[in-house]
Amino acid sequence: QSLFDPGDHQHLRFNPLRGSWILVSAHRMKRPWQGQIERPPEENVPRHEPTNPLCPGSRRANGEVNPKYESTFMFDNDYPALQPDAPDPGPGDHPLFQAKAAKGVCKVMCFHPWSDITLPLMQLSEIKTVIDRWAELIEELGPKYPWVQIFENKGAMMGCSNPHPHCQVWASSFLPNEPDLADGHQRAHWKTHGEVMLVEYARQEAVRKERVVVENEHWLVVVPYWASWPFQTMLLPRRHVLRLSDLTAQEREALASIMKMLLTKYDNLFEVSFPYSMGWHGAPTGPYLQEDMSHWQLHAHYYPPLLRSASVRKFMVGYEMLALEQRDLTPEQAAERLRNLPEVHYKDKAK
Amino acid sequence: QSLFDPGDHQHLRFNPLRGSWILVSAHRMKRPWQGQIERPPEENVPRHEPTNPLCPGSRRANGEVNPKYESTFMFDNDYPALQPDAPDPGPGDHPLFQAKAAKGVCKVMCFHPWSDITLPLMQLSEIKTVIDRWAELIEELGPKYPWVQIFENKGAMMGCSNPHPHCQVWASSFLPNEPDLADGHQRAHWKTHGEVMLVEYARQEAVRKERVVVENEHWLVVVPYWASWPFQTMLLPRRHVLRLSDLTAQEREALASIMKMLLTKYDNLFEVSFPYSMGWHGAPTGPYLQEDMSHWQLHAHYYPPLLRSASVRKFMVGYEMLALEQRDLTPEQAAERLRNLPEVHYKDKAK
Ligand SMILES: O=P(O)(O)O[C@H]1O[C@H](CO)[C@@H](O)[C@H](O)[C@H]1O
Ligand SMILES: O=P(O)(O)O[C@H]1O[C@H](CO)[C@@H](O)[C@H](O)[C@H]1O
Repeated sequence: QSLFDPGDHQHLRFNPLRGSWILVSAHRMKRPWQGQIERPPEENVPRHEPTNPLCPGSRRANGEVNPKYESTFMFDNDYPALQPDAPDPGPGDHPLFQAKAAKGVCKVMCFHPWSDITLPLMQLSEIKTVIDRWAELIEELGPKYPWVQIFENKGAMMGCSNPHPHCQVWASSFLPNEPDLADGHQRAHWKTHGEVMLVEYARQEAVRKERVVVENEHWLVVVPYWASWPFQTMLLPRRHVLRLSDLTAQEREALASIMKMLLTKYDNLFEVSFPYSMGWHGAPTGPYLQEDMSHWQLHAHYYPPLLRSASVRKFMVGYEMLALEQRDLTPEQAAERLRNLPEVHYKDKAK
Repeated sequence: QSLFDPGDHQHLRFNPLRGSWILVSAHRMKRPWQGQIERPPEENVPRHEPTNPLCPGSRRANGEVNPKYESTFMFDNDYPALQPDAPDPGPGDHPLFQAKAAKGVCKVMCFHPWSDITLPLMQLSEIKTVIDRWAELIEELGPKYPWVQIFENKGAMMGCSNPHPHCQVWASSFLPNEPDLADGHQRAHWKTHGEVMLVEYARQEAVRKERVVVENEHWLVVVPYWASWPFQTMLLPRRHVLRLSDLTAQEREALASIMKMLLTKYDNLFEVSFPYSMGWHGAPTGPYLQEDMSHWQLHAHYYPPLLRSASVRKFMVGYEMLALEQRDLTPEQAAERLRNLPEVHYKDKAK
């Protein structure tokens, strides 16, 4: 009786990790775009640039000289937003003026000695090394900090100020807003339904298929039912896994492989090095290592800004900032486009 | 005993309207910027461009011809994200796949017949007319819709695709995320403290002074204690006012005046037409018109993206998307800079 068609009719969808809604208005894709055109990413990055502080052998802002590293390389962020020893702001004098102490560390990790390479163009064994380093970071910083945020800003459009392939890790003495929401909602789902929210979600998506982008024995990539960015994806293990450090060697290999596939598809979508912010959410650490955190499932979020082409992005502005997030194409349409793209990188094909 | 200095030491601050935290790390302002440089806004916009669908006398996408309007002009958005008659998605089949009906209307309102003018350069009487139209929109759409979101995206950087001065209104059959949070937190504050959160907040800020940007008899502009964007501000009436439509003629005149002052300071900060998204939050309407909504206080949010100059913005990316929002300069530093700027527009001074 209902003539409802998600590709034609606006509707709200619920994000169970955040407890918030998004507006899907796929018919908006028809509107012409006369707004800002983004510059394409720099294509001629030199492989080695002695003045780039992320390159092997370069001198950084604090005077240190990088080793001539040949694999990954980690160092403390020279301009950290979180430092281990900031004084406490002390108790506030009014409920509307509340401050709290924040301590932590910020590190940068180079993925590779070359500046002109990105994850999808790296060897599987090199990606596997990155994953091993990520897991080590959780083991190393986890005991001290309740939250260890590993994230990658890729591309100038995503505020990345250096083309050298790298990610960051900011570990903090507090549970930030987003993981706090994810913790609360996963915990409530566990209590209400007696199942792990994202394990059940991955199982459902594997059956429903329409939002699956790529999958292998151990992992699944979907455009979430509640995605707000046009080509947003979530990367999920099939097994119940709390943290990166819990992954087996086989699961890490399979992760390297699925990351290469996803990122190759991303680059192939508009034949451009696809900008995004990505990051890992696993069970909180620090004091939480002593607690039963079974309601958690490890996952990664990919938030890419592009909408229509290499130069037209989605703007999360006015209505999105003041009311709620709105998307144009449906998650199913986005997944179908990504799914149908080749798994060979356009740059490898050109060779 | 504590050596805490907010301008030097990272700390968290609480946003009582959203119930979330932000990280202030003012020492980060020292880091050099080698990332994306924004293009300056188009300076030579012609006053009248017959092909611009927002100009008087132009033909729009749906074939209609605009009147030769001489003041404000309102029309239905030709590519609305919300339409009055979308079919209902019906009940979902699983708790992780929840959808809901969304109905509404989207309108566009031109502020002025000229394309080469902006609010701070308009006459006070012209700004007052815009405010009267806003109030009429609340009266006209309020009875039908629980939320009437008036917002302005200004500048290409904020996704605005047309230089002609205009705002939008999206009215919806649902209370979106952000007003829903604001409603819940204001209600809880009212119950716990027996006072209207933002009336008390404005009173406190008027005494504390350090975050005040500009004030007059009826209004106050502050960089909120919990601001996340570098030069974010909140515009608040001193009197307890639920909705735009409740403002007296005198309050509207004072509002026109304080808007002109704020926006002039914004433009003077980097001597550029300052990009931002802004919007009004007043008590919900529709069925809520029948309820006691005294916990609400009308306010406007201004979210401008620029950080260091006309061409260097703050990126809300990686850590902000995955963990929590981080700001570089303190709200007090931002307020001081804005407060000390002249109240004569740099373009008027040049004349
Ligand atoms: O409707 P416009 O101005 O074309 O579109 C702009 O504002 C909308 C509402 O904030 C956003 O959803 C769009 O991403 C943005 O480009
Ligand atoms: O630390 P970076 O890469 O210089 O800075 C970038 O990432 C940070 C963390 O997401 C953001 O706070 C900055 O706005 C962004 O420019």
